[in-house]
Amino acid sequence: MRELGIGLIGAGYMGKAHTLALRTVDATFGTALRPTCASIATSTAEGAAEHAARWGWQDSTGDWRELVDNPAVQAVIIATPPRTHRDMVMACIAARKPVFCEKPLGCNPAESLAMTEAIEHAGLPNMVGFNYIRTPASQLARQIIASGDIGDVIQITAEHVEDYLHDPALPASWRTRIATGTEAGALGDVAPHIVNACLRLVGPVESLVADAHVVQSTRLGPNGPETVENDDQGQMLLRFANGASGSLSFSRMAAGRKMGYTYRVTGTRGALAFDQEDQNALWLYDATRPVERRGFQKIVMGPAHPDYLAFNQGVGHGTGYNEQIVIEMRDFLEAIATGKAIWPTFRDGYEVDRIIAAALRSNAERRWVTIGEVA
Amino acid sequence: MRELGIGLIGAGYMGKAHTLALRTVDATFGTALRPTCASIATSTAEGAAEHAARWGWQDSTGDWRELVDNPAVQAVIIATPPRTHRDMVMACIAARKPVFCEKPLGCNPAESLAMTEAIEHAGLPNMVGFNYIRTPASQLARQIIASGDIGDVIQITAEHVEDYLHDPALPASWRTRIATGTEAGALGDVAPHIVNACLRLVGPVESLVADAHVVQSTRLGPNGPETVENDDQGQMLLRFANGASGSLSFSRMAAGRKMGYTYRVTGTRGALAFDQEDQNALWLYDATRPVERRGFQKIVMGPAHPDYLAFNQGVGHGTGYNEQIVIEMRDFLEAIATGKAIWPTFRDGYEVDRIIAAALRSNAERRWVTIGEVA
Amino acid sequence: MRELGIGLIGAGYMGKAHTLALRTVDATFGTALRPTCASIATSTAEGAAEHAARWGWQDSTGDWRELVDNPAVQAVIIATPPRTHRDMVMACIAARKPVFCEKPLGCNPAESLAMTEAIEHAGLPNMVGFNYIRTPASQLARQIIASGDIGDVIQITAEHVEDYLHDPALPASWRTRIATGTEAGALGDVAPHIVNACLRLVGPVESLVADAHVVQSTRLGPNGPETVENDDQGQMLLRFANGASGSLSFSRMAAGRKMGYTYRVTGTRGALAFDQEDQNALWLYDATRPVERRGFQKIVMGPAHPDYLAFNQGVGHGTGYNEQIVIEMRDFLEAIATGKAIWPTFRDGYEVDRIIAAALRSNAERRWVTIGEVA
Amino acid sequence: MRELGIGLIGAGYMGKAHTLALRTVDATFGTALRPTCASIATSTAEGAAEHAARWGWQDSTGDWRELVDNPAVQAVIIATPPRTHRDMVMACIAARKPVFCEKPLGCNPAESLAMTEAIEHAGLPNMVGFNYIRTPASQLARQIIASGDIGDVIQITAEHVEDYLHDPALPASWRTRIATGTEAGALGDVAPHIVNACLRLVGPVESLVADAHVVQSTRLGPNGPETVENDDQGQMLLRFANGASGSLSFSRMAAGRKMGYTYRVTGTRGALAFDQEDQNALWLYDATRPVERRGFQKIVMGPAHPDYLAFNQGVGHGTGYNEQIVIEMRDFLEAIATGKAIWPTFRDGYEVDRIIAAALRSNAERRWVTIGEVA
Ligand SMILES: NC(=O)C1=CN([C@@H]2O[C@H](COP(=O)(O)OP(=O)(O)OC[C@H]3O[C@@H](n4cnc5c(N)ncnc54)[C@H](O)[C@@H]3O)[C@@H](O)[C@H]2O)C=CC1
Ligand SMILES: NC(=O)C1=CN([C@@H]2O[C@H](COP(=O)(O)OP(=O)(O)OC[C@H]3O[C@@H](n4cnc5c(N)ncnc54)[C@H](O)[C@@H]3O)[C@@H](O)[C@H]2O)C=CC1
Ligand SMILES: NC(=O)C1=CN([C@@H]2O[C@H](COP(=O)(O)OP(=O)(O)OC[C@H]3O[C@@H](n4cnc5c(N)ncnc54)[C@H](O)[C@@H]3O)[C@@H](O)[C@H]2O)C=CC1
Ligand SMILES: NC(=O)C1=CN([C@@H]2O[C@H](COP(=O)(O)OP(=O)(O)OC[C@H]3O[C@@H](n4cnc5c(N)ncnc54)[C@H](O)[C@@H]3O)[C@@H](O)[C@H]2O)C=CC1
Repeated sequence: MRELGIGLIGAGYMGKAHTLALRTVDATFGTALRPTCASIATSTAEGAAEHAARWGWQDSTGDWRELVDNPAVQAVIIATPPRTHRDMVMACIAARKPVFCEKPLGCNPAESLAMTEAIEHAGLPNMVGFNYIRTPASQLARQIIASGDIGDVIQITAEHVEDYLHDPALPASWRTRIATGTEAGALGDVAPHIVNACLRLVGPVESLVADAHVVQSTRLGPNGPETVENDDQGQMLLRFANGASGSLSFSRMAAGRKMGYTYRVTGTRGALAFDQEDQNALWLYDATRPVERRGFQKIVMGPAHPDYLAFNQGVGHGTGYNEQIVIEMRDFLEAIATGKAIWPTFRDGYEVDRIIAAALRSNAERRWVTIGEVA
Repeated sequence: MRELGIGLIGAGYMGKAHTLALRTVDATFGTALRPTCASIATSTAEGAAEHAARWGWQDSTGDWRELVDNPAVQAVIIATPPRTHRDMVMACIAARKPVFCEKPLGCNPAESLAMTEAIEHAGLPNMVGFNYIRTPASQLARQIIASGDIGDVIQITAEHVEDYLHDPALPASWRTRIATGTEAGALGDVAPHIVNACLRLVGPVESLVADAHVVQSTRLGPNGPETVENDDQGQMLLRFANGASGSLSFSRMAAGRKMGYTYRVTGTRGALAFDQEDQNALWLYDATRPVERRGFQKIVMGPAHPDYLAFNQGVGHGTGYNEQIVIEMRDFLEAIATGKAIWPTFRDGYEVDRIIAAALRSNAERRWVTIGEVA
Repeated sequence: MRELGIGLIGAGYMGKAHTLALRTVDATFGTALRPTCASIATSTAEGAAEHAARWGWQDSTGDWRELVDNPAVQAVIIATPPRTHRDMVMACIAARKPVFCEKPLGCNPAESLAMTEAIEHAGLPNMVGFNYIRTPASQLARQIIASGDIGDVIQITAEHVEDYLHDPALPASWRTRIATGTEAGALGDVAPHIVNACLRLVGPVESLVADAHVVQSTRLGPNGPETVENDDQGQMLLRFANGASGSLSFSRMAAGRKMGYTYRVTGTRGALAFDQEDQNALWLYDATRPVERRGFQKIVMGPAHPDYLAFNQGVGHGTGYNEQIVIEMRDFLEAIATGKAIWPTFRDGYEVDRIIAAALRSNAERRWVTIGEVA
Repeated sequence: MRELGIGLIGAGYMGKAHTLALRTVDATFGTALRPTCASIATSTAEGAAEHAARWGWQDSTGDWRELVDNPAVQAVIIATPPRTHRDMVMACIAARKPVFCEKPLGCNPAESLAMTEAIEHAGLPNMVGFNYIRTPASQLARQIIASGDIGDVIQITAEHVEDYLHDPALPASWRTRIATGTEAGALGDVAPHIVNACLRLVGPVESLVADAHVVQSTRLGPNGPETVENDDQGQMLLRFANGASGSLSFSRMAAGRKMGYTYRVTGTRGALAFDQEDQNALWLYDATRPVERRGFQKIVMGPAHPDYLAFNQGVGHGTGYNEQIVIEMRDFLEAIATGKAIWPTFRDGYEVDRIIAAALRSNAERRWVTIGEVA
C-alpha cells in the first residue's frame, strides 16, 4: 500500500469520527492507499496540539491555511461548521489537494455551486459527507430499488428528526445563529441527510412546498437570552421527476426520537422501510408473494450485504455510526487512487443544497417552488 | 333496560360490523337502552331478507324509505356508500329518528353542513362513524394530552395508508368513481379518519397544502378499462390554530401497510406514538425523566385504560376492530338515552369534510388554503 | 337456523366472555345452530338473577344442578374454578348434555381421565377451552407447519408469562390455595395454554424436567397473612416424540409481560414466531430464500387467513380476545350439529393435564419424568 | 502515552476484530498505554506475513512461540481455536507477558483452572473475551440491577441462538469435531457468552439441568460425510444461589436468529429486556409507576450511558460489534497499566467453563447437577 498524508480541519464531533476512521480504513478494506495522520488544525494552536497528541496526529496547527499548504498533507478533510467550508475548500483547490467536506457543502447553493465548479474545473477528487446513506442497509435499499424488485417507486415518506434541542434549557450555539450556522436550522442541519436519501432512492426532485418554524424562540446565549434565528422543525411535500410524490419531516425538537432518520419507499411491486435507530435492519415487502404469506420482512445485515463483511463475519453482529465514516473514507481514498469521481461528490452536495434553498424560499413565500427556480 | 328498535341501512362491510355490535353492546356495557334488531334494508328486497335471516333482524326491506318510516324503527344506522347519505339522513330527520351515519358524512361540505344544520335544528341525537379514534389506546392518547403530561403539542406526523387497491388487477368500484364515491379517492376514503384524529388530538386546523394524485390510471370496469377518477395517494402539510404543524399522508396503494393509521404527537414535555396495526399499545415518551432513563414506553392496554374493562379483565388480552364499533354504539345509545350530544356528532363530521374539501382545492390550485375559505 | 338452548355456569371473567360470544357467533359465522341464552347459574341465586338481567339470559339459578336438569338447556358451558369442573361435567353427562368446559379440565389427570372416559362412553360432544391457539395467527402457524414450509420441527421456545400476581400487595385467592385451585399455581393456571400450543404445533411430549417455585410466600387472606400454596413461576425442558426439544416458561409474576404467550418454532427449512400481545401478526422465516433476502416476515392477519373474514373484511383491522371465544363457540356448535368431535376435546385437555402433572412430579422429585409415568 | 507492543496469535474472525480495536482504542478512550502492532502469528509464515502487510503489523511469524518470546511483544492476545489456548497461555506465563484470551478459556474446567491458577500465581494481568456483555446497553442493565431499581432478581430467561450451521450443506469444521473444538458444540461456542451474562446479571449458579443434542448428524468433511460430534442445540434450567431461577437456550441452528443473544431479567420491582440484534436499546419496565402508565420503555443508547460518549456524541447514532472489542482492549490496557485485575479475568472464564461442563454432565446423565460437583 502507498501512504497518503491526510490533513484534518476540525476536532469536534466529526473530527474525532474521521480520526477513528482513518486509523482503520486500510486494515478494514485493504485500500490501495494507506492514510497517515499528517496534520490536524483547530481554532487554536493549543487545542490542535492537544488533539494531535491524544489522537495520534503527527503535526498540528491553529491556522488551517498552514495545514492546507503543508506538503506532508496530500488530501484534506474539512470537519468545521458550514460557514467556514467555502474558504477552506477554495484554499485546498488552490493548493491542488483533494477535499472531503462535511455536509452541508455550502451555506447556500451559490456557495456550493462555486465550490463545485471550481473543484471540477481543477479536476480534483472531492466528496461530501452524507454518511447515513452508506450503511449496509441503505446501500441494500438502493440495490433493491435498482433491481426493480419493488417496481417503480410511487411514494416516499421520509424524515430526519432528532431531539437534540428539545430541552428549552439548552443554550444558543452556532446551530441557532445565521451568522455562524445557516439560515436553515433543522432544515440545514438534519434535512440534508434525508434529502440526499430521497435523491438517491427515488431520483431528482421537481418541486416542493415546505413549512418550517421556530418553536423555542429564545435560548440562553453568553450575554443572556438570544433569539433563535432559524427553524426548529418543519416538513415538506415533494414531487419527483418520475412522478412519485412524498413527504419529508425534519426536526431538532422531536422529543423521543434520537436518530429518526427513516424512510418508507413504496413501489408498484413492493415496498422498503428503514429506521436509522435500528440501522442493521432493512424491511422489505414483496407484493408479488401469495397474499396469505405477505408481510414486511426484517432483513438483518450480514456478510451477504454491501460493505458488511469487511467489518465482521457474523450476520447480525452489527455495525454502528463510526463504520459509516470508514466506508466514506474508503471511497474517498479510492477516488484519489483511481482519479474517478465517487458518489456523493460536491455536485451531489450542491443538489441537496438547492433543495434546502428551495424549501427556505417555499416557506418564506408560502408556495410551491420548482427546483429549477433555484440556481 | 328499555328496548330500542334499530333500523340498519346497508349490509356490506360496515353493516355486518354494526349488526355484531348491536348484539353485544348492552351486555358489554350495561347500557340504559337495549337495542333490538328491528329492520334491515339493502339495495334489494331479497338481499335484505337473506341478511335478516342470517344476522337475526326481525324485518327487512329493499326500500330504505320504508325502513325509516317503520314505527318499530326508533333510530337509524346508515352504512351505505357516501352518495346515499344525504337523502337518508334527511328522511330520518323528517321521521324524527336519531341517526348514526358512517363516515364521510357527506360528499362535500355543503351536503354535510345541510345535514348538520337540519339535524341540530330538529334536536335529534346524531353521530358520525369515526371508530378508530375510539380504541382504548387512542382514548388514552387524548387523556394524556389533555392532562398536560406531554406539554403543549408542537407537531404531529400522521397517516392513514393502506394497500387495498395496490394491485393494478383490482377492478373499478364505487370507490374509484366520482358519481358513486366522491371527488376524493383515498383522500375521501381513509383520510377522514386520520384528519379526525388530528382534530381530536391537536385541535382545529387553520390552513393546509395538499398534493394528491392517481397512480393507477385505469382499472377494469364492467365494460372494459375505466378511468380512475379520484386520487390513489397523497399527503398534506397542516398548520393548527395553536401554532403546531404537521404532515398527514393518505393512500390506498401503500404496499405492505394494512392498517397504517398512525400518529406521533410531539409536545414540549414528551411525545406519544400509535400504530393501528398494533392497536393495543400506546407509546409514551416522558422528556422529564432522567436522561439516562428516557425512552418510548410501550403501554399495553388493560382494565386501567379507557373502555377496556367492559370487554375483558386481562391486561394485554386485546380488543379488535369490532370492539371499536361496540364503543360507538354504546355512545350512540347513551346520546339517545340522555339527549346529550356525544362526540363525534354530525358537526364534527362536517369539520372533517371541510378539511377534505380544502385539501381537494389546495391540490387543484397548487397553493395553501385556509380552512376558512371552505364553507 | 335451528335454535339451541345454552346453560352457562359461572358469571366471572369467562362467564362474560362466553355470554358475548354466544350473542354473535351465529351472525358472525352463519352457524347451523343458533344458540339462545337459556339459563345462567352462579354461586348465588341473586348473583345469577342479576347477571341474567344484565346479560340477557332467559332464566337463572343459584343451583347449577337445576340448570343442568333444565329441559330448556340443551348444552352446558362450565366457566367456574377448576375444583368444580368434575361434578358439573359428570352431572351433564348424566343429563346427556354436550359440555364445553374451561381449562384446566380437571384438577389432576385422574379427574380429567374420568371425565374424558365418561363423556366418550356417553358419546356426547365435548370441548375444552384452549382459546389462545385459535387466533387466526396461531391457526396459520399450524397450517404452515403442516404444509412442510418450515420443514421438520427441531425446537420450540415457548412461554406463557403474565404479571397478574407480581404485586406483593395482591391478596390470596382461589388461585393461591390448593383446596380451591390446584396444586399447580402458574403451572396450573397459565401453563396449560402454552402446553396445549406445544402439543398442537410440535406433537406429543415424551419426557420433561421442570422447576417451579413460590416467590411471594405469603399474601393477605381474609384472616391475615396466608401461605401461598402453589408455584408463582417456573420453567421446563421438553423432549418430543419426534426428536425435537424445547423450553417452556410459565409465570404469574413476570413483571411487564401482560399476555406473554409466545412461541418460536424452528424447523429444518425455516421458523415461526408469535407473541400474543401482538396477536394479529405471525412472523415467518423462510430459510430457502436467497441469503441476502432472508428475514423474519411480519404477516399481518386478514381475510386470507383462517377464521378472519367472518369478523371483518379489512386486513390488519384486527381481532381481539373475545373473538377467540367466538371461534370456540362456533366449533362447539358445529360439534353438536354434526356429532363429530372437534379439537380440542376433553381427551386433549387430559393430555395437557398429564403434562402439568408430570411437571409437578418432576419438580418435586428433581428429575426427568416421562409422560408415560403419569396416568 | 506510553507505547505497549502487542502480539496477536490468530488472523481469522477475531484476529481482525482485535487488529481494528488496537488501532483505535487509544484515540477513542485516551488510554494511558498506546498499543502498537508488534507481531502477528498464524498457522503459516506466509499467512502471517500477508496479514501483517494488510493489517499493518510490524512483524510476523508462523510460529506462535517465537511471537511469545519476541521482546518487542509486551502483551499477547490469543485468538485461535480453543484447543490451542492452554499451551499458548502457559508459554505467555513462562515469558511473563499479560494475556488476553478469547472465549472459551479452556476446553474443559481442568484446563481453565490450571491456566487461571498459573496466571494468578504469576501475578500477570489476564482477561477473557466476553465481549457481548460490554455493550453500553448491557453495561446499563448491570447498573440498573445493581441500583436496585428492579428490586431483587427472581427470574432470567436467556438465550444465545444463531443459525450459522442451520444449512445442512455447510461443511464440517473445527467447530463440529471434538479433537479440534470441544465436546460442547453450540454449548461450547455460543452458550459461554450468555452463561457469562447470567452470572454477571443475576449472580452465581447453584445447579442446573441441561438437554443438548445433534440435529444434523453428518456434515461433509474433506474425506466425505463426517459425524457431527457435538451438540447443535439445547437448553437448560438454572437455579441461582440467590434463589432466582431461569432458562437458557443455545443453538447454532436457530433458523432466522442471527445474533439471538437475549435476556429478560425479572425483579420484584420491575424488569429488563435486551436483544443483541438491536444492541443499541435496553428495555426497562418499572412496576412502581402508576398502573395506567406502565410499560416496557425502549432506552436508546447515547452519551449518558456507559462507554458510549467516547465513540460518538449523538444519542442513537449507534455502536456495533467492533466497538465491543475496543472496550475490551481499553480494559486490558488499563489492567496492564494499573496492575489491577479487571473483569472478566481468567477466573471468570473458568467459572463459565464449569457451568458448561456441568451442563455436559447433566445432559449425559439426564439429571440435575450442582456446580459444586464440577472442579
Ligand atoms: N455527517 C454527520 O453525521 C455530521 C456532520 N456534521 C457536520 O460536520 C461539521 C462540523 O460539525 P461538528 O463536528 O458537530 O462541530 P463541532 O462544533 O463539534 O466542532 C467544530 C470543530 O471545528 C473547529 N473549527 C471551527 N472553526 C475553525 C477554524 N476557523 N479553523 C480551524 N478549526 C475550526 C473547532 O475548533 C472544532 O474543533 C459541520 O458541517 C456539521 O454540519 C456534524 C455532525 C454530524
Ligand atoms: N368506519 C369504518 O371503518 C369504515 C367505514 N366505511 C364507510 O361505510 C359506508 C359503507 O361502506 P361499506 O360497508 O364498505 O360498503 P359496501 O359496499 O360493503 O356495502 C354497502 C351496502 O350498502 C347497500 N346499499 C347501497 N346503496 C343502497 C341503497 N340505495 N339502499 C339500500 N342499501 C344500499 C348495499 O346493498 C350494501 O349492502 C361508507 O360510507 C364507507 O365510507 C367503510 C369501511 C370502513
Ligand atoms: N380460557 C381463558 O383464557 C381463561 C380461562 N379461565 C378459566 O375459567 C374458569 C373460571 O375462571 P374465572 O372466570 O377467571 O373465574 P371467576 O372467579 O372470575 O368467576 C368464577 C365464577 O364461577 C362461579 N362459581 C364458582 N363456584 C360455583 C358453583 N359452585 N356454582 C355455581 N357457580 C359457581 C362464581 O360465582 C363466578 O361467577 C377457570 O377454570 C379458569 O381456569 C379463566 C381465565 C381465562
Ligand atoms: N468473542 C467473540 O465474539 C468470538 C470469539 N471467538 C473465539 O475466538 C477464537 C478464534 O475463533 P475464530 O476467530 O472464529 O477462528 P478462525 O477459524 O476464524 O481463525 C483462527 C485463526 O487461528 C489461527 N491458528 C490456528 N491454530 C494456530 C496455531 N497453532 N498457531 C498459530 N495460529 C493458529 C489460524 O491460522 C486462524 O488465523 C475461538 O476461541 C473462538 O471461540 C470466535 C468468534 C466470535
